[in-house]
Amino acid sequence: MATIQDIADRLGVSKGTVSKALNGAPDVSETLQKTILETAVEMGYTIRKRREKKKLCILTENLEYEEPHQFGYDIVLGFRQMAEPAGYEVEIIDVTEKLQKASSYDVFMLKNGYVGAFVLGFSLNDPWMKDFQTAKTPAVLYDNYIPANPNMAYVGIDNSEGMELAVSHLKSLGHKDIGYLSGALGSHIMQVRNSAFFHAMRQNGLKAGPAQTGSSYYITQCLERHLPRLLDMGITGLICSHDLLANAAMIQCQQLGLRVPADISIIGFDDLPMSAYTSPPMTTIRQERAQLGKSGYYALASLMNGIAIGTLLLHARLMVRSSTARPAT
Amino acid sequence: MATIQDIADRLGVSKGTVSKALNGAPDVSETLQKTILETAVEMGYTIRKRREKKKLCILTENLEYEEPHQFGYDIVLGFRQMAEPAGYEVEIIDVTEKLQKASSYDVFMLKNGYVGAFVLGFSLNDPWMKDFQTAKTPAVLYDNYIPANPNMAYVGIDNSEGMELAVSHLKSLGHKDIGYLSGALGSHIMQVRNSAFFHAMRQNGLKAGPAQTGSSYYITQCLERHLPRLLDMGITGLICSHDLLANAAMIQCQQLGLRVPADISIIGFDDLPMSAYTSPPMTTIRQERAQLGKSGYYALASLMNGIAIGTLLLHARLMVRSSTARPAT
Repeated sequence: MATIQDIADRLGVSKGTVSKALNGAPDVSETLQKTILETAVEMGYTIRKRREKKKLCILTENLEYEEPHQFGYDIVLGFRQMAEPAGYEVEIIDVTEKLQKASSYDVFMLKNGYVGAFVLGFSLNDPWMKDFQTAKTPAVLYDNYIPANPNMAYVGIDNSEGMELAVSHLKSLGHKDIGYLSGALGSHIMQVRNSAFFHAMRQNGLKAGPAQTGSSYYITQCLERHLPRLLDMGITGLICSHDLLANAAMIQCQQLGLRVPADISIIGFDDLPMSAYTSPPMTTIRQERAQLGKSGYYALASLMNGIAIGTLLLHARLMVRSSTARPAT
Repeated sequence: MATIQDIADRLGVSKGTVSKALNGAPDVSETLQKTILETAVEMGYTIRKRREKKKLCILTENLEYEEPHQFGYDIVLGFRQMAEPAGYEVEIIDVTEKLQKASSYDVFMLKNGYVGAFVLGFSLNDPWMKDFQTAKTPAVLYDNYIPANPNMAYVGIDNSEGMELAVSHLKSLGHKDIGYLSGALGSHIMQVRNSAFFHAMRQNGLKAGPAQTGSSYYITQCLERHLPRLLDMGITGLICSHDLLANAAMIQCQQLGLRVPADISIIGFDDLPMSAYTSPPMTTIRQERAQLGKSGYYALASLMNGIAIGTLLLHARLMVRSSTARPAT
């Protein structure tokens, strides 16, 4: 473990300067502070030594969490419910691409005095996703997986299990022709659910080729491009990669004169707070959000204690509501 | 939650009789005790209510754990290091097939006053593996996966990551022709590692067909049947599903006049305590056993608190020793 003296020696500056830079004192130039922070990270200097009260951060991008009806609310709450009684301060930071480009992840964490991060909503092309491959400051990523770095863990629900529950639910109702609509495949979780669909179909002895699926970034585009095609193919069941898409698909089908579920059964993924109140109430795969937040804290505490958790998946749960039924014969 | 009174009402016996049966009093007939226990399980009666001191058990089959050099020792120790300070008694039970057939898993747990189990060394055809699919008493299974039951979790290392580390290590040394030898595919973990081999080869852009692999229950049989065939195919690298097999393969290759690693590189899986002392010391994929035990406890504590962890995988780690090198040219 490097000390402040080690960093000072390496750079040929005084211990006081290093200390000031680490604490963000204004009389150290920005360039020098940057050099000192980067050297500190490189030498494995850990913040634990210079703070009594330890801080964690929740880094979010593209995630709504302020209101109880928003997806991220319970995840953040669950995390804080574990972290704060354990003596941590938790700060939430909306991370823009600009902020990510301004400094590396490790430097950002050191500079702000965070000993660990819970990372929500990142996509595969976020700049820090590359940093995470070699980062030294522990981070737990919700729905993102970083291989072979013992400081990084992936927390989420078991999407393979969830897709298996969705497909076998439709099969048990008598559906054979099942389609899959998805958001853009530029995120880890959309890729995972997409392969899980093909796998679950095979496991259930049902046909599934790429023609039965479609993906687009925008929901309206996804429905325009792919839904008529899938309906023409004669699907009686439709699984969607997330509830917002499933709800839009239900509305669209109804506008096309189809009854849900009498003419077409539709299943979502996530169980958003609103999904019990759609018309009809949606059958979907539940993510236990508060539990995800709590598991996120545990995985982070484990990483900080040198237990190299790589993956922690919660059981998926099928919520059967009214958007699925036997196909009309 | 059912009470003792509920059970008594259902069966038309006195509360005292139910209480005696649950506590194993000798003046209740074995048949009646069995009926009462099975009814208690069916009605969701939980032991929590009748004990002050809570007990967990470690159920083992085919696992050596008594001595520090044995594989299970640190797993058991890690589990107890977490469970005992948290106020649990931990008992270790070697579970025979006979014991599994004598009563169902839930009944066994209730009868003996265990509120949760850490299950080590079970194979896919163990009778209780079927019970686990619907069991109500939380269990964490090391290296075994039970889908869709929120009371069951799987703990292990990330074998896909481990296999990827093994294959890319060999590839980085210049190997292209790589074989894989495995124990019998009748266990979950052997199946996982076997598919992981093909996946990792594809990921690394290397050829891999079934002909490059071989599996047998007995190590000697595996070597006799498959090793000469793989060597004839011209492999320069060999990955084995576990260290004992890798060590036997090293000895066998040496007896055939091949130098390890000059003529053939060999990688194991597990990092048994002995694997640093083989000749040559073995390159292998490490399972952090104490961490697995600690994670096992955490997953069990989570299940008992209603957090439905399904899968918890530790990062795999490549231990580079002296059984791998560049291929001779």
